Amino acid sequence: MIAEILSTGDEIRSGAVTDTNAAHIALKLGEAGIAVVRHMCVGDDRAMLRNAIAEISKRADIAVVTGGLGPTMDDITALAAAGAAGVGLTLDEGALKNIETFFLSRNREVSPSNRKQAFLPEGSTPINNPVGTAPGFVMKIGQCTFFFLPGVPFEMERMLEDSVVPQILVRCGKNRSFCRVKNISTFGLPESVVNERLAGFDAAFPDLTLGLRAIFPEIHVKIYGSAMAEDLLDQRIAEASNWINDQMGRYLLSPEGLGMAAVVGGLLCERKETLAVAESCTGGLVSHQLTNVPGSSDYFLFSAVTYSNASKVKVLGVPKEILETYGAVHEKTAEQMAMGARRLAGSTYGISTTGIAGPDGGTEEKPVGTVCIGIAGPNTSKAMRYCLPFGQRLRNKEIFAAMAMDVLRRTLLDD
Amino acid sequence: MIAEILSTGDEIRSGAVTDTNAAHIALKLGEAGIAVVRHMCVGDDRAMLRNAIAEISKRADIAVVTGGLGPTMDDITALAAAGAAGVGLTLDEGALKNIETFFLSRNREVSPSNRKQAFLPEGSTPINNPVGTAPGFVMKIGQCTFFFLPGVPFEMERMLEDSVVPQILVRCGKNRSFCRVKNISTFGLPESVVNERLAGFDAAFPDLTLGLRAIFPEIHVKIYGSAMAEDLLDQRIAEASNWINDQMGRYLLSPEGLGMAAVVGGLLCERKETLAVAESCTGGLVSHQLTNVPGSSDYFLFSAVTYSNASKVKVLGVPKEILETYGAVHEKTAEQMAMGARRLAGSTYGISTTGIAGPDGGTEEKPVGTVCIGIAGPNTSKAMRYCLPFGQRLRNKEIFAAMAMDVLRRTLLDD
Repeated sequence: MIAEILSTGDEIRSGAVTDTNAAHIALKLGEAGIAVVRHMCVGDDRAMLRNAIAEISKRADIAVVTGGLGPTMDDITALAAAGAAGVGLTLDEGALKNIETFFLSRNREVSPSNRKQAFLPEGSTPINNPVGTAPGFVMKIGQCTFFFLPGVPFEMERMLEDSVVPQILVRCGKNRSFCRVKNISTFGLPESVVNERLAGFDAAFPDLTLGLRAIFPEIHVKIYGSAMAEDLLDQRIAEASNWINDQMGRYLLSPEGLGMAAVVGGLLCERKETLAVAESCTGGLVSHQLTNVPGSSDYFLFSAVTYSNASKVKVLGVPKEILETYGAVHEKTAEQMAMGARRLAGSTYGISTTGIAGPDGGTEEKPVGTVCIGIAGPNTSKAMRYCLPFGQRLRNKEIFAAMAMDVLRRTLLDD
Repeated sequence: MIAEILSTGDEIRSGAVTDTNAAHIALKLGEAGIAVVRHMCVGDDRAMLRNAIAEISKRADIAVVTGGLGPTMDDITALAAAGAAGVGLTLDEGALKNIETFFLSRNREVSPSNRKQAFLPEGSTPINNPVGTAPGFVMKIGQCTFFFLPGVPFEMERMLEDSVVPQILVRCGKNRSFCRVKNISTFGLPESVVNERLAGFDAAFPDLTLGLRAIFPEIHVKIYGSAMAEDLLDQRIAEASNWINDQMGRYLLSPEGLGMAAVVGGLLCERKETLAVAESCTGGLVSHQLTNVPGSSDYFLFSAVTYSNASKVKVLGVPKEILETYGAVHEKTAEQMAMGARRLAGSTYGISTTGIAGPDGGTEEKPVGTVCIGIAGPNTSKAMRYCLPFGQRLRNKEIFAAMAMDVLRRTLLDD
């Protein structure tokens, strides 16, 4: 069973947008035991697209095609697919109904261009899109079953998971092997060092494969396994997972692959403790990440994004003398900020960030990438300084935010 | 002159790594006036790779191939290229010398596997790699000139700029065309309505192409043009840009394609005014986005992420009676929050968000997706309620944050 991926659209073809869909689809099909042997991308050109589909129809068993199902004039995938199959387009009543329901639930009217999205190639079957207006469709062309999905990653990912992968697994039937991917998240070691720590993996688990992936600033470790016996596979994955957790020690973030904010949130939740944050250089990112976790209102009380010195004094009660003596980017200031946030919110813990995210504002003594992180708890308060220059303002904010949460994580684990 | 891109390697094929090289190469070739019509990716399989090269050699004038030039056994691109051309490999003295120089300058010895990298297909010409050990090479196969480059983005980008693009421009000579891409950002209309508003574009500008792209929650409009006369092309792009700006009216965010936070920041900067934010449901995202813009400390003073009701009262001074009478998600509360943030920071404007991002917490009267946005300025304060259910917690936060900044943007434009 071999598969190909076809990404469509002038944005991707021209390089205006990096194609992240192809990697996502290849990973998910790989997890389902289907090897993707080729990716291709062509632009919004009907003849090119029709030819690409026709080529794939002679080579592959399965193809996933993304893009060009939207309501606009450059959305031509349904036409090209129909052309490659030698059929016409026809109004699919089920697809139209789904589009109408989608708009009705938002109190909006269906426009003529949205109605166009319900015209699908004859002989195709619609794939429901629960999160957007563009229906997908599946159809056989030549020897190959094509799954056509929208290019919007959010919609594509949902439909791939809900509809495409299950349909492929049914097609594979009993002969299919079982695949597992286990994700383990780590924080604090560079990818090369994680790789060195896991050097013994291949000898210990020759039946499994390891993959490292930087999801900045975390390094995720993936264990891939494939076998005909499901129970045995699960057992081996569990053994390998334990082995990796041991090698990673305190750098292990989550054996379930959770991100930093979810891990910290889980620890606070378990202990029924609460948190307040004082952010300067991270500008709200710590709070944003913490509150991305559903249920975070149980432990996250308050954050003060005190960008100006005046607000550090007025809102957090940082003594003016400390700011005047040491400056905004200093351990003393960070500690006072954490204490101030904790006091103001009446929370168990307070954490703070103050630093220089760049591109400007660095000095010889405090270059771009310098960050001071404060933590205040029931027993003690402290602060530390790091220099973590990751070159870009947003990346610096991301590493600073992760470091602040990691300081709290390690404190919670030690307590 | 048409071009194709071929990315090689199992990491990309399997989805373990997203292929960012293809987009980079397509952009750079596009800037040089060369249209890339197709990207392809195959894994480290010699037959697949040789076939892919042979296919391209029949279709394209130029091809850029990345990956598989390293020292290890899965680096098979030179062999596959030689196979497709029907020639053998031969030691290239120049390439070997470059490799030796590279190692010498780092006081390291040349290993046998690095020496392997100097074996290039007969008839090819090496491309110098100033920042790594893998030499590239250029060779004609069929009708197509192939440029083979390493897959490491840093090395590939340098060689593309130093050697490949200049060689291509020489080949094009005087016949080369110029390309332009112009990006315009909009906010507040769904993609289908933007499309309808721009329906007259093709008739007015038959020489240009339009592309729409959702960068949630914004819709970006791209104008693509290509012509032999550079001046005329720039003039046409400017005319088309003005036409689009007129069609979009108040929904035009930025004629330069800037995002919401940068646009709002620019307006505040121009007017030398300042901003404070009070966030509940957006959890710090408004502040995070505002502070992603370099220089934002000039106008962004402070944000209070008041997740708990207690912090709304204590920090922002929202009257307890208002919270008790109307609840946290209400226009009255939003208005008080905006006023409180403005008062506390002494800023020109205050904006606020309070709502229900989900997945839980919705009621019949205030379903998930409900958000109240407050704004307080020098003259007046007000608040409004929207229902914007985008299905996912993070997406709801994103649309809420954009709406809050848009309310400020429109106020600044009206003042």
